[in-house]
Amino acid sequence: MSYTREVMNTGCIVAPKGFSAGTVACGIKTVKDNLDLGIIFSEYPSTGAALFTTNQIYAAPVKLSRKAVQKGRTRAIVINSGNANACTGEQGDKDAEEMVRLTAECLKISEDEILVASTGIIGRPLPMDKVRAGIQAATASLGNTPSHGNAMARAIMTTDTRQKDIAVRLKIQNKDVILGGITKGAGMIAPNLATMLCFITTDVSLPASLLDECLRKSVESSFNRITIDGHTSTNDTVAIIANGASGVHISSSKENTGGSPLQIFQQGLDYVASYLAKAIVKDGEGATKFIQIDVIGARSRGEAARIARSIADSPLVKTAINGEDPNWGRIVSAAGYAGVELDESKTTLYINDILIFAKGMPAQCDLTTLSISMKSTDIQIRLELGLGNYSDTVWTCDLSHEYVTINAEYHT
Amino acid sequence: MSYTREVMNTGCIVAPKGFSAGTVACGIKTVKDNLDLGIIFSEYPSTGAALFTTNQIYAAPVKLSRKAVQKGRTRAIVINSGNANACTGEQGDKDAEEMVRLTAECLKISEDEILVASTGIIGRPLPMDKVRAGIQAATASLGNTPSHGNAMARAIMTTDTRQKDIAVRLKIQNKDVILGGITKGAGMIAPNLATMLCFITTDVSLPASLLDECLRKSVESSFNRITIDGHTSTNDTVAIIANGASGVHISSSKENTGGSPLQIFQQGLDYVASYLAKAIVKDGEGATKFIQIDVIGARSRGEAARIARSIADSPLVKTAINGEDPNWGRIVSAAGYAGVELDESKTTLYINDILIFAKGMPAQCDLTTLSISMKSTDIQIRLELGLGNYSDTVWTCDLSHEYVTINAEYHT
Repeated sequence: MSYTREVMNTGCIVAPKGFSAGTVACGIKTVKDNLDLGIIFSEYPSTGAALFTTNQIYAAPVKLSRKAVQKGRTRAIVINSGNANACTGEQGDKDAEEMVRLTAECLKISEDEILVASTGIIGRPLPMDKVRAGIQAATASLGNTPSHGNAMARAIMTTDTRQKDIAVRLKIQNKDVILGGITKGAGMIAPNLATMLCFITTDVSLPASLLDECLRKSVESSFNRITIDGHTSTNDTVAIIANGASGVHISSSKENTGGSPLQIFQQGLDYVASYLAKAIVKDGEGATKFIQIDVIGARSRGEAARIARSIADSPLVKTAINGEDPNWGRIVSAAGYAGVELDESKTTLYINDILIFAKGMPAQCDLTTLSISMKSTDIQIRLELGLGNYSDTVWTCDLSHEYVTINAEYHT
Repeated sequence: MSYTREVMNTGCIVAPKGFSAGTVACGIKTVKDNLDLGIIFSEYPSTGAALFTTNQIYAAPVKLSRKAVQKGRTRAIVINSGNANACTGEQGDKDAEEMVRLTAECLKISEDEILVASTGIIGRPLPMDKVRAGIQAATASLGNTPSHGNAMARAIMTTDTRQKDIAVRLKIQNKDVILGGITKGAGMIAPNLATMLCFITTDVSLPASLLDECLRKSVESSFNRITIDGHTSTNDTVAIIANGASGVHISSSKENTGGSPLQIFQQGLDYVASYLAKAIVKDGEGATKFIQIDVIGARSRGEAARIARSIADSPLVKTAINGEDPNWGRIVSAAGYAGVELDESKTTLYINDILIFAKGMPAQCDLTTLSISMKSTDIQIRLELGLGNYSDTVWTCDLSHEYVTINAEYHT
């Protein structure tokens, strides 16, 4: 590490100076008393940046926030869980707009300083009576204690089994600055953002365009590298708010050299985004194994990525790993149908650093060692193509009975 | 139907005149007495055509047969199950070559009149002692009774739970001609051919190039329309042998007009191929539902196909249907990430002919009727895009606990 970093694990989203959060169980979720609405708020004027789903069918809040974030002045985010406000037509648009308007009134800030996000079931109108009361109550409960931050992390969960958050403290220009983040995921996670929400706060200040640049870089190497079931959702949102309360101002991308303030900030943001992206995979629906797939020796990064994702999305590979079986034939054949020209006689595969397929031939390997290593909760697949100098990595999880149970029994 | 067709259900692959089959349990499969090697043989010189996997990693028998079929003189096919002879390097090539050489010796025909196919586990050398003895025994047992045909259909099975075969009798030029087919599938089935083998015999005669044309057309509308888990295998082969024993000769593609001999033959072949392709899906690993996905109103057939496959391969859609839940949000969002530009306000969805999503809005529908219809073993998804005049259809099955059990417990 070329910079000093301290990791914090509580109240993360309000750990940076000048941020507060308010949450409420307003009855959107069917299980009573489950938090289902929250507001993240910066006391100071801030800049913001956000990235959204690439799905052609996107939710009303995504449509609205995509527009609002253009101004770069994001200062608050209102989020509900339990209902995605997706495929809800004009009424959905109106409801998302009303959420923003009410939040603006309560916080006494401008509407274009607010982003809105929703997650949960698709195709049901939002219960706006509950949402209206919820926004009032969440605003009234704003605070910056660790328990406020923890409640915020829980308020965005759907089928997630645990709170996923992190904060890091960095030294920039001899001052302490903090980056805090929360995320939710579970099902429908695929590259290019999915039913995933992620919110990051920081007390550094950066111009909106530079903040956007930093966020894109971090997301490219984190959230865009994960897949659970290949299903990109309608609501994915990753947003960051930077309020400058630490007194540290980063102004130019030109200073992005070793140890520069911008580089330290980018490294911190990369760390937060990667940690949260991996946390989503580890808490994937029914996941029992975390799988890292490294494809190296490709002709281009794009080809490496296509192959890594083809392996990651193969139900046959995912079930084999669930069964702790080193079924390399499935891995190699999944690589073979990725639409990339391969040379079998140059293809080599390692599972957990054990050579198992060497240049087109099964390798002699210690099956006992291999079998024991498959019992680990971390599985590493490394495929060498021998075709060029590019590589890529994708993170995924196994496919278990529990996944089928969750998704067959989840009823609309 | 513009032609007369009689469907037969026994001894299918030897139902056309002049064909015989021989099978044996030679010990390639671990379960003793399970048939695992078979030979299909035409008593007369024939023409042949075949299509193979598009996977970049393909098995030794595919490599060899792809070359042999160029001659267009196929007269016999030797097939083993229990071992795919894939990812087996040079030894695999030699073993496939020896299978052909031995079969040629036993049948007293030329090596280039023989195709070879294998299915089963990847990456293990073939037990050639058993295979050699098996080829001798299978040849010795050649016969054309229904039980010979049925045994042949069983000899190619792996995780299939039932024999999949059909024969049809057609009238061409006032003569009876027969098309017979067998297939196997189960796992790793995806568009563009998978762990799927299909062999078709007919007593019509056609020039090899015309036979190839007919086979391509039929496969395009049958085997290339199915997907079980999106995994294209290393060994897929669809082959046809035409021996002319019926006395019917079709010579030119120019006569392909309504009711022409060629058209009748093509319709018969389409029927056989579609029946067998659907049979594979219905016997998909752990399948409890047969799902037809029709995408209409697309800008091109390619776009319709991309969307249909995106829906068909979504584990979230497949588990929802397994749970008999009409979760249309998952269907619409799977369409949305297919990489095709959509207009949500023009998108309409029917499940089992019940309107459920109308031009971007949830439709009022009778939930009781819908819920009852989801209990059917046949589910029809019809997505109207409202963008153009092209359509496409894909057949798939649900994703069940049984699929996970089969594929997690299958050990290498």
